[in-house]
Amino acid sequence: MGKIFDDEYFMREALKEASTALEQGEIPVGAVIVCNDRIVARGHNAVEALQDPTAHAEILAITAAANALGNKYLSGCTVYVTVEPCPMCAGALYWARPDRLVFGTGDEKRGYRRHTPQLLHPATRVTNGISEEKARHLMKKFFDDLRKTREG
Amino acid sequence: MGKIFDDEYFMREALKEASTALEQGEIPVGAVIVCNDRIVARGHNAVEALQDPTAHAEILAITAAANALGNKYLSGCTVYVTVEPCPMCAGALYWARPDRLVFGTGDEKRGYRRHTPQLLHPATRVTNGISEEKARHLMKKFFDDLRKTREG
Repeated sequence: MGKIFDDEYFMREALKEASTALEQGEIPVGAVIVCNDRIVARGHNAVEALQDPTAHAEILAITAAANALGNKYLSGCTVYVTVEPCPMCAGALYWARPDRLVFGTGDEKRGYRRHTPQLLHPATRVTNGISEEKARHLMKKFFDDLRKTREG
Repeated sequence: MGKIFDDEYFMREALKEASTALEQGEIPVGAVIVCNDRIVARGHNAVEALQDPTAHAEILAITAAANALGNKYLSGCTVYVTVEPCPMCAGALYWARPDRLVFGTGDEKRGYRRHTPQLLHPATRVTNGISEEKARHLMKKFFDDLRKTREG
């Protein structure tokens, strides 16, 4: 029998956040931060709602997690995010130093992995490709709908 | 006669923010954001006070400026910051797209310029070295005091 609280379980929670973003007309990215199998913070992209270019899912979740834990370091935590973080969010993860980053689908254009030297803290291990198809599907739906709106 | 509202003038305002950070025991970095010769937002590093790893001067000022202007893009604005931005803040500047970034002293260890491809948006022009000595002096004072405290 599999572990109940595994990466797929928490990524499903991050995908719920991404779906909420999609419903609100935002680029659908969601994140949850987990410590000892407990979700200590959730966030979804809110750039349009807040008209704040820094209001990415990861930034909102990191701020909320640090606040919940009373600690600027997220040691012992795992950050789940549906899409590969951008350099801003990778830079925030550098300062927050979670034990792990788990993301769904890669982002060839804006993903942090294009940059050298690497942007994450060396203490942070990375797992990718968890629920990749679902995360990518949400992103595709957003951009397909956007194209239809613009062409219509 | 020189222009009253020049880069040195606004950098002095950013240095005031950095001094406030120093008084509060924070790494002394300050920022102001200027549109049409008017300061629309100010910020200083508040990572320790807020226990928030994302609470750098630039992030706080960008969020405040976008809020003040009701626009996620800072077109037409100049961001003044006393120290070269880190990758997180450069990544935030990428999304905010100000016309200009002006910074005081460089940061060899954590500055965004070490990274390729470049982290700033190509639309953002960069000026550095404005009031460099003053910005560097504040940083040196912080780290000298920290060393004394640790050694004492």
